Amino acid sequence: MVTNKTNSNNIYNFEHTPNLIFDTSLKLENGSVLNKPTIAYQTYGELNHNKSNAILICHALTGDQYAAGTHPVTLKMGWWNDMIGRDKVFDTNSYFIICTNVLGGCMGSTGPKSINSDTNNYFGNDFPEIGIQDMVNLQKKLIDHLGIEKLLCVVGGSMGGMQVLEWATKYSERVKLAIPIATSYRHTAQNIAFHEVGRQAIKNDTNWLNGDYIKNNTSPEKGLAAARMVAHITYMSEKSLSKKFGRNKKNLNPLSKIFEGSFEVENYLQYQGSSFVSRFDANSYLHLTRSMDRFDLSEKFNGNLEKVFKSNTCKWLIISFNSDWLFPTSESKRLVNALNANACNVSFVEIESDRGHDSFLLQIPRLYNILRGFLIGAKFK
Amino acid sequence: MVTNKTNSNNIYNFEHTPNLIFDTSLKLENGSVLNKPTIAYQTYGELNHNKSNAILICHALTGDQYAAGTHPVTLKMGWWNDMIGRDKVFDTNSYFIICTNVLGGCMGSTGPKSINSDTNNYFGNDFPEIGIQDMVNLQKKLIDHLGIEKLLCVVGGSMGGMQVLEWATKYSERVKLAIPIATSYRHTAQNIAFHEVGRQAIKNDTNWLNGDYIKNNTSPEKGLAAARMVAHITYMSEKSLSKKFGRNKKNLNPLSKIFEGSFEVENYLQYQGSSFVSRFDANSYLHLTRSMDRFDLSEKFNGNLEKVFKSNTCKWLIISFNSDWLFPTSESKRLVNALNANACNVSFVEIESDRGHDSFLLQIPRLYNILRGFLIGAKFK
Repeated sequence: MVTNKTNSNNIYNFEHTPNLIFDTSLKLENGSVLNKPTIAYQTYGELNHNKSNAILICHALTGDQYAAGTHPVTLKMGWWNDMIGRDKVFDTNSYFIICTNVLGGCMGSTGPKSINSDTNNYFGNDFPEIGIQDMVNLQKKLIDHLGIEKLLCVVGGSMGGMQVLEWATKYSERVKLAIPIATSYRHTAQNIAFHEVGRQAIKNDTNWLNGDYIKNNTSPEKGLAAARMVAHITYMSEKSLSKKFGRNKKNLNPLSKIFEGSFEVENYLQYQGSSFVSRFDANSYLHLTRSMDRFDLSEKFNGNLEKVFKSNTCKWLIISFNSDWLFPTSESKRLVNALNANACNVSFVEIESDRGHDSFLLQIPRLYNILRGFLIGAKFK
Repeated sequence: MVTNKTNSNNIYNFEHTPNLIFDTSLKLENGSVLNKPTIAYQTYGELNHNKSNAILICHALTGDQYAAGTHPVTLKMGWWNDMIGRDKVFDTNSYFIICTNVLGGCMGSTGPKSINSDTNNYFGNDFPEIGIQDMVNLQKKLIDHLGIEKLLCVVGGSMGGMQVLEWATKYSERVKLAIPIATSYRHTAQNIAFHEVGRQAIKNDTNWLNGDYIKNNTSPEKGLAAARMVAHITYMSEKSLSKKFGRNKKNLNPLSKIFEGSFEVENYLQYQGSSFVSRFDANSYLHLTRSMDRFDLSEKFNGNLEKVFKSNTCKWLIISFNSDWLFPTSESKRLVNALNANACNVSFVEIESDRGHDSFLLQIPRLYNILRGFLIGAKFK
């Protein structure tokens, strides 16, 4: 196993990106089979002797396994860089942190831009429909491979939180602490609607070619950028957009510029869209958004969420943000209620933040303090 | 003047669509000039002898002058059909109702799909940037032409509400009652951001051809449909989407359908998008959304909204809906506060409705009762 080391600035270097290719196949929830799936992952810190200090961090829709350190593609810091490292919340002096690229992603784990071992060509349109369950099942193969009997903690926000929910219910005996953040046990019609707009933008791009663009050496970049733009609005609160941009304008010739953006928020969104396409794959975006839309923890119990948590033995911490209108606090409370209805061990915090859904990615002191305290406190329970 | 007549079912027939072509030009706020502009409009009821019973109804972004009766293109009832007619809220026994297609629109008034009299070709990319002010200035030419000294009332929702605000401040002496509904005196960054996503979808469509698609006998229909889809989500509340669709699914083959919609809400949005393109023009969508984004009633007063209403003599009724997250009640309250700070005559109602921004188009009994009562009561003031 390769464990990444920090440099003198406590920043991780990725000299080696572990990719584990399984010899076995992965049976998917929809019945199809993926042969020899690959899982790409990063680790931070050292696994202790009795393998009891492993924390699995699950990334969100557009995240990846480079949670900390310099991202090898964007060269920016990882999405939870401030959270992971020596003396940080996920303290690598104590914990062994694992973060995998999800199944269906585009940073090394098997996904639509991978080579299909059955055809020796890109999956593209052939990639099977996957679910959050399948992402978790692939992660479990890695955890088994690493010989970890019980994860100290599974944690993640948004789509990462859905993976936490799946882990801590399907494999509850393998998880001590479960921390789903800014998430929901199933998408609302509005969640689905926003995702569908993004998918339509990709599919409307004439370069999409019904999903087989890589084989044809092209890419639906405009469509993917548009999808990112609409999603990005939903990740921020109205207040944070107003604070950041208000109605500030670029300096433009006042005449005949109708077809160019004139407000800074327009440029910002366009930048968000165009920078996204350099690190993400359009088909992955289609598959991952669909897997979120289809996720429904209560489905097997005919919509009865309480039954999901019967005999659940994990210790739960559920976190929401008051300005998150994509996964509002009311969604987290449904989980809390269902856990309480089973006398499960559950804590819940709604954190004040005016920065919307993206708050889970930001340096919110209360978020950091609560996570740190919960992890430390749980040692003595 | 042509006044439409109702049939025995109290439904208007449009045997004649008045189009008034002015001989003079319209100077736009951005400095450019439109020669011989056309205004297309409908009227309902009869103008009384002293021309004191005229109500100007202003339509929203995707509305048009066919507020009541059967729409000649969609063959559906007009957007306020339940509001306008004999014994209805806008009672044509008493009132003379005028509804114009806005400047920049696509149902007869001068807009990007009109013929530019200077070039004898479609405007397309040549159409100048317009503002809410220009829409109102064109309407005022019609009101002058009709010889109406003072409008009994100017009323409208959303973009229609912005026109009301412009009318009742710039030409306050020409307006007795001003009723802006579900609107704002300027867009927030989030409002602009959602519009910009729609505009990008249109501009990304390879058939858009930098705005000159009509000259090239094509149309950016996919882009326009996508723009409509994202806008439509913002017009509904999360609750109304959930009530209407929840997570209901179509019956689809569970395998290999990743690239097709499977939730009913997806189909609904796609239908909304595709039906929209048959009655709307993509360039109009770009221009009208931009004019909303650029509207700022306080701009001339350096953002000081109170100064806008100094010495204002209209009688105001401001209406918002509690589930409208696009133009929330807080925006209406800003108007109320600024009016009150000038001791203006202002009433305000927040109406309970779980149907979001679109509530102003729906049969909400309290909305109907309040409008009816306000109009009747104002006769005695």
